[in-house]
Amino acid sequence: MYDGIKGFRDFYPGEMAARRATIDVLEDTARQYGFREIGTPALERAEMWTDKSGDEIVEELYAFEDQGGRHVTLTPELTPTVARMVVAKQQELSKPIKWFSTRPFWRYEQVQQGRQREFYQTNVDIFGSSEPEADAEILAWAADAMTGLGLTGDHFEFRISHRDILGGVLETYEGDVDVDEAIRAVDKSDKISQAEYHDLLFEAGLTYDQAAEFDDLVAAGDLEAVESFANTERVTAAVENLQNVLAAAEDFGAREHCTISLETARGLDYYTGVVFECFDSAGEVSRSIFGGGRYDDLIESFGGQPTPAVGVAPGHATLPLLMQRAGVWPEEEVTTDYYVLQVGDTRAEAARITRELRDRGHVVETDVAGRSFGSQLNYADSINAETVVIVGEQDLENDEVTIKDMESGEQVQTAVDDFPGDRERPTFEDFS
Amino acid sequence: MYDGIKGFRDFYPGEMAARRATIDVLEDTARQYGFREIGTPALERAEMWTDKSGDEIVEELYAFEDQGGRHVTLTPELTPTVARMVVAKQQELSKPIKWFSTRPFWRYEQVQQGRQREFYQTNVDIFGSSEPEADAEILAWAADAMTGLGLTGDHFEFRISHRDILGGVLETYEGDVDVDEAIRAVDKSDKISQAEYHDLLFEAGLTYDQAAEFDDLVAAGDLEAVESFANTERVTAAVENLQNVLAAAEDFGAREHCTISLETARGLDYYTGVVFECFDSAGEVSRSIFGGGRYDDLIESFGGQPTPAVGVAPGHATLPLLMQRAGVWPEEEVTTDYYVLQVGDTRAEAARITRELRDRGHVVETDVAGRSFGSQLNYADSINAETVVIVGEQDLENDEVTIKDMESGEQVQTAVDDFPGDRERPTFEDFS
Repeated sequence: MYDGIKGFRDFYPGEMAARRATIDVLEDTARQYGFREIGTPALERAEMWTDKSGDEIVEELYAFEDQGGRHVTLTPELTPTVARMVVAKQQELSKPIKWFSTRPFWRYEQVQQGRQREFYQTNVDIFGSSEPEADAEILAWAADAMTGLGLTGDHFEFRISHRDILGGVLETYEGDVDVDEAIRAVDKSDKISQAEYHDLLFEAGLTYDQAAEFDDLVAAGDLEAVESFANTERVTAAVENLQNVLAAAEDFGAREHCTISLETARGLDYYTGVVFECFDSAGEVSRSIFGGGRYDDLIESFGGQPTPAVGVAPGHATLPLLMQRAGVWPEEEVTTDYYVLQVGDTRAEAARITRELRDRGHVVETDVAGRSFGSQLNYADSINAETVVIVGEQDLENDEVTIKDMESGEQVQTAVDDFPGDRERPTFEDFS
Repeated sequence: MYDGIKGFRDFYPGEMAARRATIDVLEDTARQYGFREIGTPALERAEMWTDKSGDEIVEELYAFEDQGGRHVTLTPELTPTVARMVVAKQQELSKPIKWFSTRPFWRYEQVQQGRQREFYQTNVDIFGSSEPEADAEILAWAADAMTGLGLTGDHFEFRISHRDILGGVLETYEGDVDVDEAIRAVDKSDKISQAEYHDLLFEAGLTYDQAAEFDDLVAAGDLEAVESFANTERVTAAVENLQNVLAAAEDFGAREHCTISLETARGLDYYTGVVFECFDSAGEVSRSIFGGGRYDDLIESFGGQPTPAVGVAPGHATLPLLMQRAGVWPEEEVTTDYYVLQVGDTRAEAARITRELRDRGHVVETDVAGRSFGSQLNYADSINAETVVIVGEQDLENDEVTIKDMESGEQVQTAVDDFPGDRERPTFEDFS
């Protein structure tokens, strides 16, 4: 007997049904927004990640050499792949390019609740617009997807900021400050102690006094205060852009879910503008549910023409934690409309009924294992069949079948020629 | 600029839409049959394949050592994984177990038309029934899926056989015949010359006279002739089982698509009973479109209790070849119900209309890139928008919007308060 690999989950039908229902809401919402599905490879050249430096992601790659000597890696995220795809067809694609996809990614990380080594994300991105409406549309999609899952403002909030606010404030300090490193410190600040946070800021080039001042300013989250503290064009522009995004989000119905939070920085270096993370409003799920933001420089860094971009990627390991907390995670069980039960040699008639019910789009099972009446009824119960159609030899001699409601246990006989007849979804009630 | 990896495809929205429509038909049909979706990992222990021998698959594995020192491989097929999952929950799962899933697999093979190194399959399996109805249900699902795609008996046929027929005939020969090797030779016979075929049979232990006799017998495909030639219980039972499967397939509506073909052997060693392959009836696509069959011993070989099994796995690289040949491959293009065009500062009203149309389930885009009238209209055309709703500043002063039919180019004005109103899918015709 073989074991699966640590951090790689098997999903059996009950749990998978709940996951599929969740993914369907995200994808249907994306389709309504005009995002178009793409399909992307599991493997890419490892250089797409290792050519950069500083990302934790590089240490977590499932990278190896393939039989042709290529350095390849299981993709730990989608963004570099979609950037490569945009560059490859930059001329033919009409802009804005709006893409989505749901698929697994892989990182060799510590396994814990809500974090597996194989994890699924629905990535949603817009390429080719630097306007605040694009950022707002990403926020609006995320908000609509969340409310489509049954979540409300009581359950989630988007903490939103702008990369140039932190960057612009940091560059006002004298001395040799590593801005990216300091921003990574901010990103970690809610997971570590204040002393550790200030140590990281110190390592990034701030003095301890500056670290304390910077910490206070960021924690307060007052846009006007930040603007006047920095007093630079960059910070003023960033504040204005953030306010424009929030104004567009108001028109798009997502403003009510957004809270300004300057501590929101996002770990990845490629973000350039507005960034946001979705959190449990009640704080019961302590970590970020998912995040997104603007990454205007990535396409150019991949050899393309300058192409602004903004995106978000809800993960299907963390989202269930919030949905369970909120009581909106779907029942982890399979559902069945009809079970067509055969007693004796009634296969041909049972098959006719089964096919007619399936033609109407219903989920219908019939016996394929030559089992007894009781065993079939137990099975019908185990798959949560709503209605059982009993096709028995003796009934058929009278040209009848029996319709059994599985919740009440009641049953009624009806003419076999009249079942299902022209009914779209015949049940016990139709014949009783 | 980075390249993708050879044999790994990017799917852009147009082609992806056609693929998704195809996958939807297969999966919706599977759901109607009561197959339940499962989710499975991309990586497994390499031993799941390397412990066996003789399979070409082993040489094609994307296998490597992970950071924890595990010998792992990208999965080249689903069957060992579902076998592992069945064994892991053998007691709790009610039988028959009916599972499906669509996902990529990976093999380091020669890339050619219809064959990539990353390829997608929809796997459909039944565990826990040795009855012919289970084999027939797999055939019926495959036939319904194919006809659901718009294919008919003019386009495809299932060539069907039974492993014990070939095996039973082969074991009647005196001497040291390697039956598995001989069956692999049969599986290859239509891709090689007759002389090469007979050489392979000779290598498997037959004399050249026996090889010629065996070749004639198999090619004729006459079940009675085979039964009397072998005159063994095993072959008689196999012929009877095959006939029982075909009788059940008759009741299930799939018999008309089945042709007895004793050359159909399937390459993999784990098949034990009925096997079949789907071919282009007209022979224009020369290779097998997909195949399936019964593999009753696999679960036990994985350490589980003896559990009969039967399955099939249409591949999404070969199926499009047949669909294109038959003229039923969907248009490779995106579709859009509405584009809401903004002229001047009309974002709030355009957003209101956009949201109301999306709430009705439609695909609706609006400007997120601050673009001109002409540029928006070009974009609406590029995404095949059916209807454009023009929200202009001057129109709005008169409380009107313009509804434009993109096919005819005609347009009409209507009261903004009345759009969309209580219409489910308002078009130009509703207002003209």
